[in-house]
Amino acid sequence: MRLRNKPWAKDYIDAHPQYIIPTPEKRKGDWKGVFQNDNPIHIEVGTGKGQFLIGMAKQNPHINYIGIEAYQSVIVSALEKLIEEDLPNLKLLDVNAENLTDYFAQDEIDRVYLNFSDPWPKPRHEKRRLTYKTFLEQYEEVLVKNGEIHFKTDNQGLFEYSLQSFSAYGMLLTFVSLDLHKLEDENNIMTEYEEKFSEKGNRIYRCEVQFK
Amino acid sequence: MRLRNKPWAKDYIDAHPQYIIPTPEKRKGDWKGVFQNDNPIHIEVGTGKGQFLIGMAKQNPHINYIGIEAYQSVIVSALEKLIEEDLPNLKLLDVNAENLTDYFAQDEIDRVYLNFSDPWPKPRHEKRRLTYKTFLEQYEEVLVKNGEIHFKTDNQGLFEYSLQSFSAYGMLLTFVSLDLHKLEDENNIMTEYEEKFSEKGNRIYRCEVQFK
Ligand SMILES: C[S@@+](CC[C@H](N)C(=O)[O-])C[C@H]1O[C@@H](n2cnc3c(N)ncnc32)[C@H](O)[C@@H]1O
Ligand SMILES: C[S@@+](CC[C@H](N)C(=O)[O-])C[C@H]1O[C@@H](n2cnc3c(N)ncnc32)[C@H](O)[C@@H]1O
Repeated sequence: MRLRNKPWAKDYIDAHPQYIIPTPEKRKGDWKGVFQNDNPIHIEVGTGKGQFLIGMAKQNPHINYIGIEAYQSVIVSALEKLIEEDLPNLKLLDVNAENLTDYFAQDEIDRVYLNFSDPWPKPRHEKRRLTYKTFLEQYEEVLVKNGEIHFKTDNQGLFEYSLQSFSAYGMLLTFVSLDLHKLEDENNIMTEYEEKFSEKGNRIYRCEVQFK
Repeated sequence: MRLRNKPWAKDYIDAHPQYIIPTPEKRKGDWKGVFQNDNPIHIEVGTGKGQFLIGMAKQNPHINYIGIEAYQSVIVSALEKLIEEDLPNLKLLDVNAENLTDYFAQDEIDRVYLNFSDPWPKPRHEKRRLTYKTFLEQYEEVLVKNGEIHFKTDNQGLFEYSLQSFSAYGMLLTFVSLDLHKLEDENNIMTEYEEKFSEKGNRIYRCEVQFK
């Protein structure tokens, strides 16, 4: 994600607390209260500019979505889309997923989406990958029992690594496609990166894994 | 594997009991005796014309190999190569792997290779795939504790299926490559199918999985 300096980002975020929830640690255990209903809650970690969750929230009005994006300069693009669409079932958090358990209580989340996560290909950066075991520990804690991670990427190395990391963690692989776009799944909502890299001819990999 | 009728195959096999072991059920529990040493034993299920195991047996003289191939008309091609090379650490069995536990005792085998196994793409043929759970049960029984399966194929559907089948069986994925030939591994011994399909431009998938 190219980071442009956007000095106005912080003020813009602060002006829209109904979309980008301020001090989310105060909402820990009360996300059903934020959405004011009992629908399942799915989160995306590393939401970027938000195209995926905007599409998902429109396609599935009875699921609540929360997009987590560490960079304010990036999340404002998702915020702009959300203001325009005004979807009641989508919220954003401008926080780092490293501290996920500060924001969500045990069993509070029904599914985690990871899309085109930064690959961090150097071995010494393994710990930064969103499928590294310390992240899996956090997902497991906030997810319901048998909760799932749905992961897609065009990055071969990250996908290979992640399959092994999920397996080493004892997770169950319930779905895998090594060429997602060959499946012609009409329900597939493309992310920004997915559009860009599939146009380049890259294969898209996708899997679903479940905590046991 | 195209099957040509070879009426001479049976006699040819019977004439070479030092290479294609007759009545292997009588050797159950005594394969170290067959090789007359204590080296580890690796088997390949669905050996075809034997190129892989001939290469492996030459590359690794301190490992014993057994190639299992159900079709006599196919295994004779492996036999011809083996007669020529006369490798002491390679034997062949003209049997169906469905009955693997009739031929090998518990913990007798150190590794199982599966290369370009027949994909059986129709759901109703799932049980015939060599990575279906009934085959995994047999591999687990004959393998040592923490024994591994090393699997390669160009067939996307079979590879996806197998990753899920291994996971459902509780196996640990210790290695995966979604484009084996990009790795330029000098030790990789190509099978007949691997040569044919990689020349066509197909990607080769490979994984290693371990019983827990
Ligand atoms: C490569 S982009 C992909 C964006 C989007 N998911 C897509 O598929 O188009 C990855 C995004 O994840 C964000 N990200 C990476 N690590 C994160 C973390 N620990 N917490 C929150 N966001 C993170 C980055 O800032 C970046 O915007
Ligand atoms: C597609 S060929 C691949 C041959 C070789 N491994 C290669 O990679 O070139 C699969 C082979 O597995 C054999 N085979 C399939 N199922 C088998 C079984 N249950 N027991 C023994 N051999 C089997 C077939 O007869 C065939 O020769």
